[in-house]
Amino acid sequence: MIKIAVDAMGSDHAPAVEVDGAVQAASQLGVPLILVGQEDLLRPLLAKHNAEGLPIEIVHASEVVTMEDSPSTAVRRKKDSSIRVAETLMRDGKVSGVISAGNTGAVMATAKLVVGTLAVVDRPALSTVLPTQKGKPAILLDVGANVDCKPMHLEQFAIMGDIYSRAIFGIRRPRVGLLSIGEEDSKGNELTKEAFKALRLAPINFIGNVEGRDIFKGDVDVIVCDGFTGNVALKLSEGLFETFIEMLGQELHRTLSAKVGAIFAQNAFRAFKRRLDYSEFGGAPLLGIKGISIVCHGRSNANAIKNAIRVASEFCKHNVNDAIEKEFTKLGLMKSARA
Amino acid sequence: MIKIAVDAMGSDHAPAVEVDGAVQAASQLGVPLILVGQEDLLRPLLAKHNAEGLPIEIVHASEVVTMEDSPSTAVRRKKDSSIRVAETLMRDGKVSGVISAGNTGAVMATAKLVVGTLAVVDRPALSTVLPTQKGKPAILLDVGANVDCKPMHLEQFAIMGDIYSRAIFGIRRPRVGLLSIGEEDSKGNELTKEAFKALRLAPINFIGNVEGRDIFKGDVDVIVCDGFTGNVALKLSEGLFETFIEMLGQELHRTLSAKVGAIFAQNAFRAFKRRLDYSEFGGAPLLGIKGISIVCHGRSNANAIKNAIRVASEFCKHNVNDAIEKEFTKLGLMKSARA
Repeated sequence: MIKIAVDAMGSDHAPAVEVDGAVQAASQLGVPLILVGQEDLLRPLLAKHNAEGLPIEIVHASEVVTMEDSPSTAVRRKKDSSIRVAETLMRDGKVSGVISAGNTGAVMATAKLVVGTLAVVDRPALSTVLPTQKGKPAILLDVGANVDCKPMHLEQFAIMGDIYSRAIFGIRRPRVGLLSIGEEDSKGNELTKEAFKALRLAPINFIGNVEGRDIFKGDVDVIVCDGFTGNVALKLSEGLFETFIEMLGQELHRTLSAKVGAIFAQNAFRAFKRRLDYSEFGGAPLLGIKGISIVCHGRSNANAIKNAIRVASEFCKHNVNDAIEKEFTKLGLMKSARA
Repeated sequence: MIKIAVDAMGSDHAPAVEVDGAVQAASQLGVPLILVGQEDLLRPLLAKHNAEGLPIEIVHASEVVTMEDSPSTAVRRKKDSSIRVAETLMRDGKVSGVISAGNTGAVMATAKLVVGTLAVVDRPALSTVLPTQKGKPAILLDVGANVDCKPMHLEQFAIMGDIYSRAIFGIRRPRVGLLSIGEEDSKGNELTKEAFKALRLAPINFIGNVEGRDIFKGDVDVIVCDGFTGNVALKLSEGLFETFIEMLGQELHRTLSAKVGAIFAQNAFRAFKRRLDYSEFGGAPLLGIKGISIVCHGRSNANAIKNAIRVASEFCKHNVNDAIEKEFTKLGLMKSARA
């Protein structure tokens, strides 16, 4: 039975949204859960939800990692933090996956330290899911686990992203693109030019370089880049979306006619926002570690938590890590083979 | 008298929009211009515009660089291309600036080869202007001239961006940020961590690291990055903007109520789109070369061409290159000082 641990103390509105999301996941998806955090806060919240009979346990953790803690502080000093206790439950086989809406760097560092990287993988990669014009989501990785990469890391990210896309989104032959600054083979920086050569030989459906503008068009399923570029791209997208909504709102309040129009069109605006809503996409899995850790946005709502739990349980059901280990071994990509 | 050369053959709708934009600039701004391109195409277009008496000359160039030409092909093979003839006019002192909506790589390569880089500058940088929530535009550089950078290049970009912001946007003390993946000093990749140290000592108002989400918020005036990251960021922004407009349009056509709302709010939508319209911003100046070359979007309309002409003449009026040379010399940043 797949059981998932939820770090209940991570999000900006913790632990309310985590408890709410956990109750939704347990009742709607039937996923057994462990809420990890300060018991005196969690128990009354859970009681309010009529959660009697739902497969939700609480495991106490006395400390909380904040957004201000550096990953190394979180790992070294806060040994009884909710994220660390959750990852320890996974290490000890008590749960199959962990989700957290806390400090991304701390979650990654804790997962690597406590649970460890898959033996075949050099560098775990944080992957995010982005909406596209054509409806199907696109996977972007790495979005922040590795700021300085070598070409072989991008190759490993591509293969992990391909497996992710097939397992979770059911795409038979994902189109994998390399994020660069022009479609021609020769375009890019030193890193992407070398990675391009490796990706052309990899057993994936490599469609070549893609540009920033292609990410949201829906013509590529997996987009590979170093963690610096990916993190800039991810945060830029979020910022631009907020700017867009803000500016549109300003204009729609400027005249009476615009205000009337905004009322008639309010369902359309809601639908538009929903299509771009990160909370539908189930967070950012850290690919390449043992078990599965999914990082959710700090501003997650209950729906985002629920969806991350769903994705975590799907990762386990589809044995994504087995697939990564088999594929890396087959390709001789494992660390040992190169050592 | 400041005279500007317009490569009339560059844009997707060349030469019509270039001629149209030139006529607008000459009549509204009084800037003397030379249209460079195929005379048999340009002369009838100009005649249609009632351009009699306007300070517009035509200089013939028999060849055209296409978007498919590589920069080196453009430079080596097409010696009578409109962009090359325009840059040669600048080299020979016939004009003070060049604007082109053609192949960006070819424009940059031709400018560097024909006109040359300022003696003090290592690497010219392509800079673009982006809209922000607060109305004031932000400058992002480099957006594609240098894909692999050293920390000292980012330092030079910062100083050129600072001068640009003061001269053209009249910002007294521009806030300069380093594009990175977290606000803390310690965040970033090898390049940005080193650049951070240099920027802290530079005689600019360095506000530290900024993230992708900050670009559009309006709290930073100049954002510095390597040309790979900047180009990804720029194209991502364009693509995301198109995706937003496309998705919003889809939702506004889905129901009768939404359609009615869209009609009432149509002026608001127009105003909104105008705020994000690149054509208002006057193209992307290539900072650090002799004279001034401004690259416009391939899809430029006449308004974009006119605004680029305006910005080019302002660069000349404000002696931006003199300011760059003086500042670099003062700081001992010049190539010779380091050699």
